[in-house]
Amino acid sequence: MNFEHLRALAAVVDEGTFEAAADRLHLSPSAVSQRIKALEKSVGQVVVRRTVPCTPTHAGSALLRLARQVQLLEAEARHALGSETSAVTSTPVAVNADSLATWFLPVLEEAAGWPDTTLDLHVEDQDHSSRLLRQGDVLGAVTADPAPVNGCRAVRLGAMRYVPAAAPALRDRFVGASGPDWSAMPVLAFNTKDDLQRRFLASRGGAGQPPMHTIPSSEAFVAAVRAGLGWGMVPELQVGSDFDDGRLVLLDPAAHHDVVLYWQSWTLQSGRLDRLAAAVRRAGRLLRS
Amino acid sequence: MNFEHLRALAAVVDEGTFEAAADRLHLSPSAVSQRIKALEKSVGQVVVRRTVPCTPTHAGSALLRLARQVQLLEAEARHALGSETSAVTSTPVAVNADSLATWFLPVLEEAAGWPDTTLDLHVEDQDHSSRLLRQGDVLGAVTADPAPVNGCRAVRLGAMRYVPAAAPALRDRFVGASGPDWSAMPVLAFNTKDDLQRRFLASRGGAGQPPMHTIPSSEAFVAAVRAGLGWGMVPELQVGSDFDDGRLVLLDPAAHHDVVLYWQSWTLQSGRLDRLAAAVRRAGRLLRS
Repeated sequence: MNFEHLRALAAVVDEGTFEAAADRLHLSPSAVSQRIKALEKSVGQVVVRRTVPCTPTHAGSALLRLARQVQLLEAEARHALGSETSAVTSTPVAVNADSLATWFLPVLEEAAGWPDTTLDLHVEDQDHSSRLLRQGDVLGAVTADPAPVNGCRAVRLGAMRYVPAAAPALRDRFVGASGPDWSAMPVLAFNTKDDLQRRFLASRGGAGQPPMHTIPSSEAFVAAVRAGLGWGMVPELQVGSDFDDGRLVLLDPAAHHDVVLYWQSWTLQSGRLDRLAAAVRRAGRLLRS
Repeated sequence: MNFEHLRALAAVVDEGTFEAAADRLHLSPSAVSQRIKALEKSVGQVVVRRTVPCTPTHAGSALLRLARQVQLLEAEARHALGSETSAVTSTPVAVNADSLATWFLPVLEEAAGWPDTTLDLHVEDQDHSSRLLRQGDVLGAVTADPAPVNGCRAVRLGAMRYVPAAAPALRDRFVGASGPDWSAMPVLAFNTKDDLQRRFLASRGGAGQPPMHTIPSSEAFVAAVRAGLGWGMVPELQVGSDFDDGRLVLLDPAAHHDVVLYWQSWTLQSGRLDRLAAAVRRAGRLLRS
């Protein structure tokens, strides 16, 4: 297996097209195409689906993972040898949107002091990010999955607590003497993968489906709750002072949902990966233990 | 063509699986499957790719668009007749992340006063959102594309201005007497579709590729610029006071990039769509004219 071919595979998947990969590698598109074909010949399988964007096949995923591991180790070896060239490696990391909006931000601050590493963040739901690890898309992931992906280790970070919140005006319209009218009060969801609200409604045994808005941005989601568009399960890290200010009200002070988060990353002897893990764990102290 | 079949198609595409569509429609998965098959038989083509998530075929896109138009018009007719049932319609809308983080938020506030409509936001790059209109995924879109999609009208909203910004600490490290060292100073990009920074670098004629981080969240992107991770083209709407406070510095006071935004939506006689368009235009007054 040829390392230049693996590098071409990683570039095609990262950039999405053969042309953009060629740009990044300072090659012609046909040179990239030849490398991918040579790789496919050497393993006897198709490694990239020629879609827009290009995606790795099952066989391609295993090679992609190898490519990223080798790239990281090669860069560290170069660095150890005192070489200046190619010393900056890209570190693909998956993180869920609510974490990126809150406790994960100090990781970006720490990374500002790492001249040898760039962060390539992928925003993915915590219930789906272990898939990105498995596919070789990322080296590390903030995930709700405690079971280590094959070849990875998992460290518990802490729990992100979600509480049911609404604007006072919405509460006034839909909360009566017998409590909230869950079947009528409009509700927000982040996207179709987000079932925090549905689960909460199911636990309330409510019949009927309330109107549901979809707001796929952590910050806009909280802004929409504040604006009274609907109620939602919001991270307490994001709205702490809103309850004190009266901008938001808790719909049920006893109810909350904790999402336990883990840091999963490949078991590589890599100083850069260890440094990243340490930064993530430090930032994770903001989570509930 | 049967409206129940079209409704099943829209639910399968919205929810991603036959099972979730069945839940939403209060049907069994096999009933959903039968409706899709009946639809396919009636048009003589496959309408849904059975992938995870399910996606419409080219033929399915045309039907999906019809389904959403009919749903909207049906709900308005019901409302006009004074019927209470099914009066709430979902309005799928595409908006770019930077707009959702800034000038678009008042649209959510206005929508809080529309009991007959829920918003189903899709976050998509302004250069790619007209595709969602074409595919029938959304009824309206904030887009950089001035050419109306077939069956749509386009209204100019205004320009979003991006300026090259950095933290003072980063400026001190990479800006010398002859100006910024664009080939060495780390740079941020939102994702691989975001070429604002690349275009700016190309206009500076810089050789060499600086280290590039990828931060696919508007708010985290600005937070990362403040933290000194890299410089970036940031919306002036998002960082106005940061320049006054000295938290950010302009790397080139004369340089900026304006992205002109349009509201494109289907040409339907629909009161709800007109009301949404009016709210978007009002909110768009925050943009440069």
